[in-house]
Amino acid sequence: MNDIGSRSSAGPRFEVAPWSIAREGLDPARLAHDESVFGLSNGHVGWRGNLDEGDPRGVAGSYLNGVFEEHPMPYAEEGYGYPQSGQTVINVPNGQIIRLVVDDEPFDVQRGELLHHRRNLDLRDGTLHREADWISPTDRHIRVESTRIVSFSRRSIAAVRYRVHAVSHEIAITIQSEALPNEPLPITHSDPRVQELLTAPLVGVDAAVIGTAATLIHRTRESGLSVAVSMDHSATASGPFPPTLVTEASPDLSRTTVRVVLAPGEHVELIKLVGHDWSSTTSASALRDRTEAAVADAGRAGWDRLVDEQRARLDEYWACADVEVEGEPRLQQAVRYALFQVFQASVRAELRSVPCKGLTGSGYEGHTFWDFEAFVLPVLTSTAPHAAEQVLRWRHSTLPHARDRAEQLHLCGATFPWRTIDGRESSGYWPASTAAFHINADIAGAVLHYVRATGDHAFEREAGLEMLVETARLWMSLGRRDAAGAFHIDGVTGPDEYSAVADDNVYTNLMARLNLRGAAASARRHPEVARTLGVDEAELDEWLSAAAAMSIPFDEIRGVHPQSAGFTDQDLWDLENTTPEQYPLQEHFPYFDLYRKQVVKQADLVLALFFAHEAFTTREKERAFAYYEAITVRDSSLSAAVQAIIAAEVGQLDLAYDYLAEAATLDLDDLHENASEGPHIAALAGVWTAITAGFAGMRDSDDGLRFAPRLPKRVSRLSFGVRIHGQTLRVDVTANTATYLLKDGPSVTVGHFDDRVDLRAGDPVTLEIPEATSAGPRPSQPRGREPRPAAEAFRS
Amino acid sequence: MNDIGSRSSAGPRFEVAPWSIAREGLDPARLAHDESVFGLSNGHVGWRGNLDEGDPRGVAGSYLNGVFEEHPMPYAEEGYGYPQSGQTVINVPNGQIIRLVVDDEPFDVQRGELLHHRRNLDLRDGTLHREADWISPTDRHIRVESTRIVSFSRRSIAAVRYRVHAVSHEIAITIQSEALPNEPLPITHSDPRVQELLTAPLVGVDAAVIGTAATLIHRTRESGLSVAVSMDHSATASGPFPPTLVTEASPDLSRTTVRVVLAPGEHVELIKLVGHDWSSTTSASALRDRTEAAVADAGRAGWDRLVDEQRARLDEYWACADVEVEGEPRLQQAVRYALFQVFQASVRAELRSVPCKGLTGSGYEGHTFWDFEAFVLPVLTSTAPHAAEQVLRWRHSTLPHARDRAEQLHLCGATFPWRTIDGRESSGYWPASTAAFHINADIAGAVLHYVRATGDHAFEREAGLEMLVETARLWMSLGRRDAAGAFHIDGVTGPDEYSAVADDNVYTNLMARLNLRGAAASARRHPEVARTLGVDEAELDEWLSAAAAMSIPFDEIRGVHPQSAGFTDQDLWDLENTTPEQYPLQEHFPYFDLYRKQVVKQADLVLALFFAHEAFTTREKERAFAYYEAITVRDSSLSAAVQAIIAAEVGQLDLAYDYLAEAATLDLDDLHENASEGPHIAALAGVWTAITAGFAGMRDSDDGLRFAPRLPKRVSRLSFGVRIHGQTLRVDVTANTATYLLKDGPSVTVGHFDDRVDLRAGDPVTLEIPEATSAGPRPSQPRGREPRPAAEAFRS
Repeated sequence: MNDIGSRSSAGPRFEVAPWSIAREGLDPARLAHDESVFGLSNGHVGWRGNLDEGDPRGVAGSYLNGVFEEHPMPYAEEGYGYPQSGQTVINVPNGQIIRLVVDDEPFDVQRGELLHHRRNLDLRDGTLHREADWISPTDRHIRVESTRIVSFSRRSIAAVRYRVHAVSHEIAITIQSEALPNEPLPITHSDPRVQELLTAPLVGVDAAVIGTAATLIHRTRESGLSVAVSMDHSATASGPFPPTLVTEASPDLSRTTVRVVLAPGEHVELIKLVGHDWSSTTSASALRDRTEAAVADAGRAGWDRLVDEQRARLDEYWACADVEVEGEPRLQQAVRYALFQVFQASVRAELRSVPCKGLTGSGYEGHTFWDFEAFVLPVLTSTAPHAAEQVLRWRHSTLPHARDRAEQLHLCGATFPWRTIDGRESSGYWPASTAAFHINADIAGAVLHYVRATGDHAFEREAGLEMLVETARLWMSLGRRDAAGAFHIDGVTGPDEYSAVADDNVYTNLMARLNLRGAAASARRHPEVARTLGVDEAELDEWLSAAAAMSIPFDEIRGVHPQSAGFTDQDLWDLENTTPEQYPLQEHFPYFDLYRKQVVKQADLVLALFFAHEAFTTREKERAFAYYEAITVRDSSLSAAVQAIIAAEVGQLDLAYDYLAEAATLDLDDLHENASEGPHIAALAGVWTAITAGFAGMRDSDDGLRFAPRLPKRVSRLSFGVRIHGQTLRVDVTANTATYLLKDGPSVTVGHFDDRVDLRAGDPVTLEIPEATSAGPRPSQPRGREPRPAAEAFRS
Repeated sequence: MNDIGSRSSAGPRFEVAPWSIAREGLDPARLAHDESVFGLSNGHVGWRGNLDEGDPRGVAGSYLNGVFEEHPMPYAEEGYGYPQSGQTVINVPNGQIIRLVVDDEPFDVQRGELLHHRRNLDLRDGTLHREADWISPTDRHIRVESTRIVSFSRRSIAAVRYRVHAVSHEIAITIQSEALPNEPLPITHSDPRVQELLTAPLVGVDAAVIGTAATLIHRTRESGLSVAVSMDHSATASGPFPPTLVTEASPDLSRTTVRVVLAPGEHVELIKLVGHDWSSTTSASALRDRTEAAVADAGRAGWDRLVDEQRARLDEYWACADVEVEGEPRLQQAVRYALFQVFQASVRAELRSVPCKGLTGSGYEGHTFWDFEAFVLPVLTSTAPHAAEQVLRWRHSTLPHARDRAEQLHLCGATFPWRTIDGRESSGYWPASTAAFHINADIAGAVLHYVRATGDHAFEREAGLEMLVETARLWMSLGRRDAAGAFHIDGVTGPDEYSAVADDNVYTNLMARLNLRGAAASARRHPEVARTLGVDEAELDEWLSAAAAMSIPFDEIRGVHPQSAGFTDQDLWDLENTTPEQYPLQEHFPYFDLYRKQVVKQADLVLALFFAHEAFTTREKERAFAYYEAITVRDSSLSAAVQAIIAAEVGQLDLAYDYLAEAATLDLDDLHENASEGPHIAALAGVWTAITAGFAGMRDSDDGLRFAPRLPKRVSRLSFGVRIHGQTLRVDVTANTATYLLKDGPSVTVGHFDDRVDLRAGDPVTLEIPEATSAGPRPSQPRGREPRPAAEAFRS
């Protein structure tokens, strides 16, 4: 095989450009990573960036949000309340495949000579473009150009424009465009029952052809979902002979074969439209009609309009969401990449969950976790609030499952699942899932933030209040009063997964307090809805009383908040004698030892410093940040952005910038060597938050937004937008000034350090950034777990 | 089918007799329970009390200590250090089966008319006798008499004398005596890999016939063990025609067919000898030779000698071990039954583990747990010390596995497995296994008690000291010093499985202290051995210093020791609103809720009051007992005896007696409705301990034995024996006096309440029992979890 690129861990893996992610060449060892980076999705349909011709590939991936197979969960020893069935995302029929035969030789980048190969993800167009110049083993030179869209405006549609140019010789071209079910999953389950269910999860129900269009209907065995994939094609050639198209379909395959003979200089162009849908209830025929209608509609619109729509939808997004960074090109690129990923993972999810890897990877079995509500939703709320609303409404729709789960656990209200696709708990290890009740407050927190930021009272009435009420009830039944009246929440697990089943986790208690108070305030805003939910004044009083009595342990000796009661009295993990190969710790040490010692996987108390920022003094934040920095090993991708935010708040701008660099390069540089499983959506969302909450010091409270911006040395200017009540606020920061521009709507008051500023639409206000007080020495991290310097991370 | 008995839960299930357990009739609903009660074993071979003819049956069971199959352990979510393979006891070829054909009608108690059926386990003879009078559907009346032995003197031998009498008619009798491999296990594993491995775990290797003898050799697939079962037969008839014998064998079956025609009044007698052995290393041919030699030897000895040997071995045991109870016939029977079970489970285990269900049931997969060393070994040490030594030597032989496990967990010394057959950890839920490090101190405690009680210095040198050293090293690496120098053991689980992963479990810390001190003392007794183990004075000093600094938390406010640090501050379990159907709690509530509240499954701190009795004042014991009584739900069979012991010590004799009654009737009355899975060996051992340590107040310490006897009202006299340094001490207690008789050997000093008494062999000493001080009110138990009154339990 010819050299199609070489693996290199030094320097950026992708070309540095402000609005695109591109790679010249093809590195077989990095195919799966490329597939994740070049994956396209709209939150409903997801296509990994597999090569058009299907091979070679890292991981084949074509997903439809909500399509999963259900399988038994095995336990070596059973326990009450253990979930009995698990959920795993599966491939829907793969509509990406366009195989190409050049004379009688299949186009395969691993054979012949690949003169040139380039893929380019355009973050403004929302397209993936590919060019390949290839000479076949029989010396036929062709150029392939393809452009892919997963449409933001047409939820079920993905489309490809595929062009083949004959460079040398007269060439007989055969294009086989397919939808291929049961592409293998990158999963090896030790339990053969699971393996069997997931090996070919789709069972054929129907395969139909009308003209150039074909539709496949499949069904999953256990989860009982029907999946429809329709495709249609049109083809033109630049030469005198029109291409012929033949379409066929069976449950194993639908295929359109295009044949044409090209003279040198001629090309053939194929437009492929693929429609996807699924349902647990709709009949196969209705599903077929739906996807065929979507494909026909897209066909009538035509390729150019699909492209225009895509660009228009993104223009709208970027108008507010774009973050401009001057002085650091790789950061500029990484921030836009991160915002693009957050957007495409969520924008058309519409009453479905957003998996932690989005829809362009199958990591974590396609499950959604707390980090969506805690990390991603605030970003969406500030940049694409409609998408945020839709996913919150999905959570609301799962309340029946959450109520059932609470009942099973002998608790009141609702207990949302730690990991799930459809709303039912699918976790297999209770100390790090069932006990991690904070997810309920994280969801409530996202509801409260969304309502505060959007003023969307319809949502609050129809969905938000009920979620707040049910989670408040959960806390009331989960907590208890001690003899002195203090309210405790015992035996729970906070965000740090290297501690578990502890009493009075400060993060959990503070978030529960926000939950209780927020639920009471929301109920008072909507007394008639509250009444239908059975909430009376007495219950509100109980919530507020519990919130006021919430126990927040403090270690007086060390002057810091313990992560949980007694945490700071625990033995310290022997970080000095932990070797680099022993990270992540959970893969090299037993839980029992991690749990009983002070070692932190990911920001927990430090996350509380951010989410519950009003509960801490500046001095407490400084001390806590320094204390926890020394014992946080950052074995989770969720941590760096949070550490960046608090580092910036306590004046450690260099450290904050290093953490931001880590979050920003995590996926593009594949720092955790698992980007092949899909992008880290929550960590990517954290890039935005590290910038806005970190370097712009943005905080949200009942009083509105407040800013305290300070740029890192290497950034000369920073600009970003935030949506507030349907209006757009643009914040522009330089080393010495901050300019606030309200773009539209009625006037808004924001905070700038200790000042309050009234903003009127169209009237920018520029303010000085006060001198920083000295920040003290840079806190130290465990040996070998320091973030790499930003200068190194951003080196071009 | 005719009435062959009826199920009745009221009244004793077996005839009350001092030296036997018998049942008239056959209750099909209670077959599996009967099989456990009538099971025979010698610690090497175990036969459940299946009917000779094999059907009907509850659970087919023929076990060979150490024969198991290995299988994958499934986890819904994997974790570091999780054991990857499990072990499950399997059936060896079933040599019990003797099918009988009466003319052309198979003898089946479910057909025809069963006039009489009786089984009788003779506790002095060590035989199971059966009589059945049966009229076949074709009106042939026969009487079957069988007697079974699993030989204590010939380790591999089980034998049956089987007689058939023709009562009416001339009858053609066919007897098919078999060894049948792969009898089904009462196991349904949800993991099909496990199910498949366990469905027919034995693979035929050889099947050989020589004359009337046949041998089967099988091999297990995964554990790679070879199993040999040989049998031989002799048959005689009282009439003129000798029976014919034909023997055949294939890997699926070995069978001897005996044919004879009996006139009315005549009988045929078959003697069946079955030899069993296994090995992981020995060749099949050597194994075959071994078992055939054992069978041939037993054949030369003859049936009568086998019976005599059995009786002689038991006479020797009972000479010391027998407990006489006057005034309560059911208790008398139950105590002897308990001692018989302890004896037959262990006597010939010889370098193998003793499963918690002995060898007459497959409950808990045939695993051994901490309760063998903690509950059973002290009884064996006091009544059959050689058997105790052998099982301790088995533990010693597993040190390489225990060292590997410690290394895997990054600990020093050795970590013995929570559950195992061959010494490797086979637990699937770490909070209740890996974290239950106390098993190491329990083993050390058994070593120390054994050495103290026997003076067996050879054992101490060859095995005991090494176990003490390795467990002491474990504690040193598991514990830590706080700033003030106190030694803490954090994040461990004590005996109470409704709490887990807690700091400074008082039981664990006190046992670790005994372990450290005992190891140091033993090392000083054997300095040369200690040196070869790398122990120097500095290490001894560290152990003693840690022991002296051991943290033993005490709740000053409540005046009790918390089970673990902070336990008594936890929320109380809502016992008032827990309904009877919600017990056992672990089957109805999630661990997270049980762990964070005060509710105790089984004696934990109260067990510490017994095992570490010198660490508590009488007042502390009284307060602790009352406190923990109120929150102990006794969902484990291990608890009642311990509660009996401490109840007796604090003067609650009636309550103690109720607990003793529960322990004594647990198996015979099937109180937990799981005796079908095998006897509860540790709970049965507890019957002896409840009597000797409870009502006789026996305590063991470095100063020797001490007694403080007080009889319960309904017992007029109690007498038992204890082995001390190879001598026998007999203790005889009445309401007002205690008589101590040393039967042999040099003089011994014992304590009687606050006095010290010198005993010389053959010279009984009778002492007054001092007046009891008033005990205060009877402590209360959780609603519905009080022990049933002894008067009711022992009602005939």
